[in-house]
Amino acid sequence: MRFVVIGGDAAGMSAASRAKRHQPDMDVVVLEKTGDVSYSACGMPYAIGDPQREMDGLIVRTADVFRKKQGIDLLTNHTVQSIDPENLNIKGTTLSGESFAFDYDKLLIATGASAIIPDLPGTGFPGVMVLKSLEEGRRIKTHISEKNVKKAVIIGMGYIALEMCEALRSLGIAVDMVKPRPTFLPWMHPDLSAVVREEVEKNEVGVKTGQAFRRVEERKNGLAVVCEDEEYPADMVLVAIGVAPNSMLAGTAGIELSVGNAIAVDKKLRTSADDIFAAGDCADAFDVVTGQKTWVPLALRANRAGWAVADNVCGKNKALPGIAGTAVFKVFNLEVARTGLNPKSAAEAGFDPVEVMIQSRSRAHGHPGSAPISVQMVGDQKSGRLLGVQMVGKDGVAHRINAPAVALHAGLTVDEFSQSDLAYAPPFGPTWDPMLTAANQLLKRL
Amino acid sequence: MRFVVIGGDAAGMSAASRAKRHQPDMDVVVLEKTGDVSYSACGMPYAIGDPQREMDGLIVRTADVFRKKQGIDLLTNHTVQSIDPENLNIKGTTLSGESFAFDYDKLLIATGASAIIPDLPGTGFPGVMVLKSLEEGRRIKTHISEKNVKKAVIIGMGYIALEMCEALRSLGIAVDMVKPRPTFLPWMHPDLSAVVREEVEKNEVGVKTGQAFRRVEERKNGLAVVCEDEEYPADMVLVAIGVAPNSMLAGTAGIELSVGNAIAVDKKLRTSADDIFAAGDCADAFDVVTGQKTWVPLALRANRAGWAVADNVCGKNKALPGIAGTAVFKVFNLEVARTGLNPKSAAEAGFDPVEVMIQSRSRAHGHPGSAPISVQMVGDQKSGRLLGVQMVGKDGVAHRINAPAVALHAGLTVDEFSQSDLAYAPPFGPTWDPMLTAANQLLKRL
Repeated sequence: MRFVVIGGDAAGMSAASRAKRHQPDMDVVVLEKTGDVSYSACGMPYAIGDPQREMDGLIVRTADVFRKKQGIDLLTNHTVQSIDPENLNIKGTTLSGESFAFDYDKLLIATGASAIIPDLPGTGFPGVMVLKSLEEGRRIKTHISEKNVKKAVIIGMGYIALEMCEALRSLGIAVDMVKPRPTFLPWMHPDLSAVVREEVEKNEVGVKTGQAFRRVEERKNGLAVVCEDEEYPADMVLVAIGVAPNSMLAGTAGIELSVGNAIAVDKKLRTSADDIFAAGDCADAFDVVTGQKTWVPLALRANRAGWAVADNVCGKNKALPGIAGTAVFKVFNLEVARTGLNPKSAAEAGFDPVEVMIQSRSRAHGHPGSAPISVQMVGDQKSGRLLGVQMVGKDGVAHRINAPAVALHAGLTVDEFSQSDLAYAPPFGPTWDPMLTAANQLLKRL
Repeated sequence: MRFVVIGGDAAGMSAASRAKRHQPDMDVVVLEKTGDVSYSACGMPYAIGDPQREMDGLIVRTADVFRKKQGIDLLTNHTVQSIDPENLNIKGTTLSGESFAFDYDKLLIATGASAIIPDLPGTGFPGVMVLKSLEEGRRIKTHISEKNVKKAVIIGMGYIALEMCEALRSLGIAVDMVKPRPTFLPWMHPDLSAVVREEVEKNEVGVKTGQAFRRVEERKNGLAVVCEDEEYPADMVLVAIGVAPNSMLAGTAGIELSVGNAIAVDKKLRTSADDIFAAGDCADAFDVVTGQKTWVPLALRANRAGWAVADNVCGKNKALPGIAGTAVFKVFNLEVARTGLNPKSAAEAGFDPVEVMIQSRSRAHGHPGSAPISVQMVGDQKSGRLLGVQMVGKDGVAHRINAPAVALHAGLTVDEFSQSDLAYAPPFGPTWDPMLTAANQLLKRL
């Protein structure tokens, strides 16, 4: 049996490795269009921001290890250009222009996602960068040192934009962030978003919301991001307005697409075409809270889905329940975390959301290092179910989000969650963990 | 209606305050035998170990606040000596020797627990201390400074003993810990216990297991803890071999006792006597994993049970599902956490336990500050249920235990827990959180 994998990043290599572990005699072929496989994409902002670190330090396993130790037929610089689901065949071209073709018994599309570049003048200038692939990360790091970047403009204010503004500031680079919409982090409760904005501005990043971006212009000594009312000079422009799934290959082959143009998969990661699976940032998922389709391009899901595909290719019948949309990021000294729905997405999904905002502390009353934690918790008026949590603070936020994340998977009510026996010791929290305080307060409104 | 509460610590004051909030016209009487109410008992080792902190800084709310702002009839230095469940009456004596008596409609016994002092010669010397009440904490702190303590011996090696060895070492005091049993932390997996022992010994604490303790002797310039084979000189001896519930008052009144002599309560915190509740360290609880009775004297349970009693006194019909036995402590630079059962307690409860031990890291591969985390996870061969987790590490352990704790409350299988969408970002963990890696490994054995 031949298992062909298109894309050699998190989902693709997880699937290929696991399939080989399950069935060492399986013919596993991975076709990767870049020269890189298996690197920590999420680590790129940190490697860019630290002069002591090299981008290639993010490579977890080299192509050679996959080939020689695991026996995977891993072909880099191989771009797949068409899938023929009728004849179980794929075709493509290598970087050097040679054609190739493979028949498959099972196929995994793990083509990932790409950074969105707005279709506006000047976004093709060499100093305008995006950050999604390792190659793009290398380009940014090289550009910063070779061009001696002193001033950067980031277009967008999402996770990557925020992580990169910290990375650039840590290198002493002046940073402005611009976005057209008036709200800084629209998915967050305004009280929480204000805490993040304050932290970013305290670190001397210009936060320019409501700046409709028109074009990038070349100037004598650099670039300028020209917005409707103002322009921002820069030695480097980072476009970080979001990512889109690389689903055109699948779409062209007639495979069904879904939310955000991601490839539609069922719980066993099967696409609408026989013997073709999709996993990772190119594929959709089920939301465990709403049961509806969602698209959340995050690393854990990609790895997990890759494994599940390998299990199913090997006849193990593995179904994934779905995702809670749990995410965390660090921006300067702040930890920001979320899981599940916010009131808006909850209402859209048909719930009757009720929310509380509470302030608690990361450690016991009077314990050194204790810092404020702000929590929004959302529940459903009708069923009493816990729907989501958002949280911001300088200490003890990141792992705290996992308790409500598990509660979402288990479908607990706010009342049930509020009875959880969470850990307490003065160096780590108040007697009532902030998660429990939020649940207790939310209960009063349900 | 009169609601009488015996004991003015976590459970008692939580109940009294909440009852008053529910029904401001209720006659709420609290009888506390010491002069202190509502302080953070768990904070005592940290206040003792920090010369900048005062013990009274641990008082969360003073008796006056409870009296004047909340209208609670709070009587300190009032020791209750008998309960008459037939006639709904209690009797006692004040510190100054006056008798008092109260009729009640509802009674809460929240008498807490006391440190166990072995019945051996010399434990009555002034330099021999225990740490359970704030008054005992003050005595220790005063003794250390007034007697200029340079050398201490701790009898026992539990949570309090370990927290206190750190506190004493931070004051520059030489510390030996002794215990008669040969195993350092018998409830832990030996690999984890070894990590804790190494950390303690690295901080120059003598860990003397297998030392059968015989007596304390007075010497010219201090005390000596005399064990079977050896003796340990000391300016101060801390006895920290455990606590026992203060249940004699209830037992004498004919109220049913249970595991460890704790007062038996149902899920609504009702004792075997009509209109008498018990909560806090004096009362038992249900284990959410086994469904059986257990006794876990921890602060969160005490507060929660106090609230539930107030709800039930006010006719709200509140039942507590039980506890997972989640606990965390810090010892020097190490965080130690647990929830649920270990293989031994799981087997005793009728499960067929299977365990794994894994090593993971607190942050992403190569991220600064990443430290090893060792995890033991236990599941049930028959049902696939998650049964318990233990974890040790220098970074990111404390809050990580709460995800499996919630899973225990929800009765998740290891497979279900392994599908949880936990947060990932390089500063906070590897893509697969150590909890998920442990679950994935355990699944292979189930």
